[in-house]
Amino acid sequence: MESTKLKAFIPFFYLVWSDDLLTQKEFFTLQEFIGSQNWLSKQEQEILLSEIDILAPPSREQLTEWKSEIEKVIQTKPSVKTVFDISILLSKNDKTIIAHSPAFIKLENDLGILDEEALGSFRKNTDIITSNYQSANTLYIEKLTQLLDGEQAEIIKKVKSVISRPEFAYETSTDVAVYREKVFEWCKILAKENLGNMAFPKQYGGGGNIAAYFAIMETLSYHDLSLVIKFGVQFGLWGMSIQSLGTEKHFRKYLNDIGSLQLPGCFAMTETNHGSNVKGLETTATYNHDNQTFSIHTPNENAKKEYIGNAALHGEMATVFAKLMIDGNDYGVNAFIVPLRDKNGEILKGISIGDCGLKMGLNGVDNGTIRFDNVVIPKENMLDRFASVNKNGEFESPIPSDNRRFFTMLGTLVGGRIGIPRSALTAAKTGLTIAIIYSDRRRQFGPEGGLEVPILNYRMHQRRLIPLLAKTYAIHFALQYLTNRFIDKTESEMQEIEALAAGMKAYATWSTRDVLQECREACGGKGYLSENRIDALKNDTEIYTTFEGDNTVLMQLVAKNRLSEFRKSFGEMSPMGIINYALESAKTAITEKNPIITRKTDEGHLLDDKFHLTAFEHREKTTLASLAKRLKKLIDSGLEPYDAYNVVQHQMVDVSYAYLDRVILEQFQIAIASIKDEECKEILLKLSHLYALSQMEKNKGWYLEDGYMEAVKTKSIRKLVNQLCWEIRKDAVSLVKAFDIPESCLAAPIAL
Amino acid sequence: MESTKLKAFIPFFYLVWSDDLLTQKEFFTLQEFIGSQNWLSKQEQEILLSEIDILAPPSREQLTEWKSEIEKVIQTKPSVKTVFDISILLSKNDKTIIAHSPAFIKLENDLGILDEEALGSFRKNTDIITSNYQSANTLYIEKLTQLLDGEQAEIIKKVKSVISRPEFAYETSTDVAVYREKVFEWCKILAKENLGNMAFPKQYGGGGNIAAYFAIMETLSYHDLSLVIKFGVQFGLWGMSIQSLGTEKHFRKYLNDIGSLQLPGCFAMTETNHGSNVKGLETTATYNHDNQTFSIHTPNENAKKEYIGNAALHGEMATVFAKLMIDGNDYGVNAFIVPLRDKNGEILKGISIGDCGLKMGLNGVDNGTIRFDNVVIPKENMLDRFASVNKNGEFESPIPSDNRRFFTMLGTLVGGRIGIPRSALTAAKTGLTIAIIYSDRRRQFGPEGGLEVPILNYRMHQRRLIPLLAKTYAIHFALQYLTNRFIDKTESEMQEIEALAAGMKAYATWSTRDVLQECREACGGKGYLSENRIDALKNDTEIYTTFEGDNTVLMQLVAKNRLSEFRKSFGEMSPMGIINYALESAKTAITEKNPIITRKTDEGHLLDDKFHLTAFEHREKTTLASLAKRLKKLIDSGLEPYDAYNVVQHQMVDVSYAYLDRVILEQFQIAIASIKDEECKEILLKLSHLYALSQMEKNKGWYLEDGYMEAVKTKSIRKLVNQLCWEIRKDAVSLVKAFDIPESCLAAPIAL
Repeated sequence: MESTKLKAFIPFFYLVWSDDLLTQKEFFTLQEFIGSQNWLSKQEQEILLSEIDILAPPSREQLTEWKSEIEKVIQTKPSVKTVFDISILLSKNDKTIIAHSPAFIKLENDLGILDEEALGSFRKNTDIITSNYQSANTLYIEKLTQLLDGEQAEIIKKVKSVISRPEFAYETSTDVAVYREKVFEWCKILAKENLGNMAFPKQYGGGGNIAAYFAIMETLSYHDLSLVIKFGVQFGLWGMSIQSLGTEKHFRKYLNDIGSLQLPGCFAMTETNHGSNVKGLETTATYNHDNQTFSIHTPNENAKKEYIGNAALHGEMATVFAKLMIDGNDYGVNAFIVPLRDKNGEILKGISIGDCGLKMGLNGVDNGTIRFDNVVIPKENMLDRFASVNKNGEFESPIPSDNRRFFTMLGTLVGGRIGIPRSALTAAKTGLTIAIIYSDRRRQFGPEGGLEVPILNYRMHQRRLIPLLAKTYAIHFALQYLTNRFIDKTESEMQEIEALAAGMKAYATWSTRDVLQECREACGGKGYLSENRIDALKNDTEIYTTFEGDNTVLMQLVAKNRLSEFRKSFGEMSPMGIINYALESAKTAITEKNPIITRKTDEGHLLDDKFHLTAFEHREKTTLASLAKRLKKLIDSGLEPYDAYNVVQHQMVDVSYAYLDRVILEQFQIAIASIKDEECKEILLKLSHLYALSQMEKNKGWYLEDGYMEAVKTKSIRKLVNQLCWEIRKDAVSLVKAFDIPESCLAAPIAL
Repeated sequence: MESTKLKAFIPFFYLVWSDDLLTQKEFFTLQEFIGSQNWLSKQEQEILLSEIDILAPPSREQLTEWKSEIEKVIQTKPSVKTVFDISILLSKNDKTIIAHSPAFIKLENDLGILDEEALGSFRKNTDIITSNYQSANTLYIEKLTQLLDGEQAEIIKKVKSVISRPEFAYETSTDVAVYREKVFEWCKILAKENLGNMAFPKQYGGGGNIAAYFAIMETLSYHDLSLVIKFGVQFGLWGMSIQSLGTEKHFRKYLNDIGSLQLPGCFAMTETNHGSNVKGLETTATYNHDNQTFSIHTPNENAKKEYIGNAALHGEMATVFAKLMIDGNDYGVNAFIVPLRDKNGEILKGISIGDCGLKMGLNGVDNGTIRFDNVVIPKENMLDRFASVNKNGEFESPIPSDNRRFFTMLGTLVGGRIGIPRSALTAAKTGLTIAIIYSDRRRQFGPEGGLEVPILNYRMHQRRLIPLLAKTYAIHFALQYLTNRFIDKTESEMQEIEALAAGMKAYATWSTRDVLQECREACGGKGYLSENRIDALKNDTEIYTTFEGDNTVLMQLVAKNRLSEFRKSFGEMSPMGIINYALESAKTAITEKNPIITRKTDEGHLLDDKFHLTAFEHREKTTLASLAKRLKKLIDSGLEPYDAYNVVQHQMVDVSYAYLDRVILEQFQIAIASIKDEECKEILLKLSHLYALSQMEKNKGWYLEDGYMEAVKTKSIRKLVNQLCWEIRKDAVSLVKAFDIPESCLAAPIAL
């Protein structure tokens, strides 16, 4: 195009031919525009139209030339603001062109051109925030590790050093038999290091230190999770069942050998037809008066014990849960020690063992099924702390109610619901470490002509990982709290602690499920390769949401406990209870539910710890009261209680979540308050803010329905979540390094 | 207790001793109560207090006796309403007791006793809705199958019959080498059945039927997913790359042998450092003028091809994507056929192959890495549909813009983004079939003395599975729509269809991820055993969210396409555009955003198809306009466009979801409208309602923020979701049976 005036069209020609997003429609728009401009001569129109003939595209060289003409203009005049500005400059400020500004501007608009975007691609500006943002140098990593490890730092260090030894190199064989033997060998090494018996009383060879035992379970979880579960089955389930349900004579006879792994054993509770509903177990232990023995029996195929760790290969004995029958009367579920194999590994008479076969994960654990065909055991094999059969063959128990005895027995086993979430959280930490280190390095896409961007700089990627990092830190402190409560427990606190443990088990294991899922996806193809270990982490922890109590069932339990607490405070929403509650609610309404608060969006307020906790408490209390009211209404309307509870199951899960969210935030805040180091305090504070705000964002529907917040506030919270993700991203690598995972355990090539 | 009056205390004694939820605190409450009742003599008080001495509990027999006394009273007087009513009756209507009603009622309240619950446990009512609810007999299953299969019923039947043959029994070896060979053998059988070449043109031995090819991919997905991917790599990626990017000479030379699996090949696009950002590929194809060849070369370790299916073992050739270099100039990414192995399987000179090793799933596919060390190929090996090198060694292309050429090339490969979501959905159908059939049979817990309840009768369990079943049906019809659009496409629709395919790929594969996760958990321990196949389904489809385009990246693409469409309608939010949009919005505001609508909660309205679609459209339009405005504001404020797009990434995902939700609902409604059979129509209508309402529930935060709904409406929607789950539960088993999955494919013992 020789004519200077016509050069005004170059930017448009270039854009329609080059942009990958514009389509045929744009050609028509441009053709129509040219045809309708009567200040162009017929000949000029023809010249212009020939440049946008779909059947005769310009040459690649022509495009390149147009592009360079445009770039020249932009480089000399950085003040250029619109595509039409380029047109003017290319036409050397032709008056006719300037006179037709409105038409050109409409054309730009019709073509859907976004000026800044179009200009951006010519400017080749590489001074892009997204590209240049990076990890900060931080000095607090070691201090943060100390804070996380707390009083257990020493044992944690020891375990890390053991599992970093060459003999703990991961097993890579896909042969399950090889893997199982390796895991068993690892357990023997740990037993030799006196790590297995840490929680057993000192007089039976143990370490007498429950807190250290939990720290061991947790730290082992940086390594292979089959090892953790095999270890947990032997020392935590088999050993602790003796310690919790047995008496002196059992301790003397078994604990030493269990602790040294001379006596591998099982915890045989679950049956095929009865997992969650333990009360419904069908295996029987029938008392034989004549020779003072019990016959352990599996009455039908579906009553066989299933998923029992250590059963398929190594277990020599098992704690078997069975209904005690005396003279045809059912005395409920009790526990009995039943030998399975002799010292040569031969399965004993009357015992049938099956192998659960390949599983989604944890294939280093030999889960099996056990059937009993009238297996006779001596009377002393009954674990008789809570119930026994006396000399006269009569049932005896310090707890008269079968129901309460049953729950008391189960209550002593609650330690598993502390060990499992701590193990789960450790797996989440590993996953996050791998995904965050990789995302900090991995570059993909970037501005035209600029460097590719570390994917952790993308806001969406931050959104995927950083709130989960904050949540993981939050749960860490809540699990510390749970552990301390458990260790220092008094009788009267037991039900609260049991409910808390049940809830934290569900909360932490579900969180781990989500974390590892997100980490897998965030690492793309690399996250799918087994060498990067997210595979094993995800599949091994997958069952954590099921075993030690199905999470959904546990969340119902937690809510029932909350309801019972609520009723103790306010009665069953009787007139008096309702008045009490109304008074309580009124206080909330006056202080918080006024437009100044529900619409308050300044950062000072939104980042205020007190606001966070109050908002969590409000949700906790309100959902609970509303559940109690709804239940009462349903039952009053004539629904059977069982049906009424069914109707509100979904609400019960909400109540449990609200309770657990509050506990976790509260404990996170308390832990932070006691920190001296300013740097650690500052970054943990940010994490606690992100945890609080992202949980509020997740529940914004509830807060809006309730009227506790208005739209302007929930929107501000969303923005603040984004902002905190962006700020914390600088520290993300340091924050995962503070987990201090041994390199040999981390092992993922993408994170080393 | 001899005294009749004192018998009034029996219910309280029983409850505190037996209830597993009451604690020490209750004993104190009761003790205090007894101590403070001055109408009791000192002696009477002592008798009573002795019954609640924690150190001297009643005997088990005593408890049983109390219980039977209470039960007798309740059975004779069914009118009993409170625990205190029992007290009165046990005291034989003692006047003193009656006179102290308020005190007793307060006691009940203080103990947190919920009367109906307490009474329920004595009544042993087994007429419980939760226990008795069950699957309905339905007659529509076969008709529904026909509806789902539609025009492809015949080929679907054929594929099902092939994969049900004994030779397709699942491979159970954990030896990857064995598994890979088995999958390869299966592919050969399918090729022999002329299933692989179904989409190839008839003149090259194919079936010329793309619709049937997609149906084959889909149906194969009921079987092993490694088979599906291996099959897809050979016929869909390797074969279609020739068909889409090559010309006549390539078709003639290769298509027959590819279709018959005489020539196994690879699709070598992804490099270690460049997955999503294909434009950044570093492999080069340098043109050699002297002998008219190309040298294919891998410049560095991170530029090697990675994750390439068929590479590790079986591929003899590959379509390799590389930057075309002529005389030092870069002509962008193009595709070339490169031989990898000779007919004996020997790797050719200059080629280095690595094995990706064990993966999370799909271990029957031999993914590998490929490096090229200046491998020379003849000029004719360039796939030259969109670009070529002419006789003079000059670059030639009908598409002048490198950018557009690149996207046009990629656009021809969009079929993969139809095959993959259809395969993913099939896996979700299998998972749901297993989980729903199992949940219908599996019983756990139940009312005191009553039958255990099928777990699918629990509301929470319904909530977990049934909305996902509805969503799966919804996606099914949307994928049919996408397939039809793709097959009938015209040039001008391509960008829309590409965006829709990208979006549906992300939507369906994420849905499958969620479905299979939920199915795993819903099946508890059984869901963890490999024999029940959720393991394989989940792990095999895990990578579906990454390959064929990372979902998060795809969702950004979809939003960009929506933005571009938006700008074409309204301009770049220029004054004119804003006026247009405001007018449009005003219409919404007038018709829908008035209190009568935002608070409307009658079922007629909430179950109205038009309301559903309008609500979805409102969300779609509003989120898009708000994104466009925000982007403009950010850019106007001086942010570089690249940075501005980063800031709104999260919003872009929301926009894409809103768009996809709308398309899916719309297509589901359209499909239902054309159904003749009343039974099928009725149940599908229910599913569409559940899909619509549960998506609204999921997005209630947005609707409340926007003001489109008020709390009273979102709460009604939640209730209706529960109700629909409950209603559809009766049909759930029939609905999964309509998927008509061959038993040998389903294979899970818990679902057979």
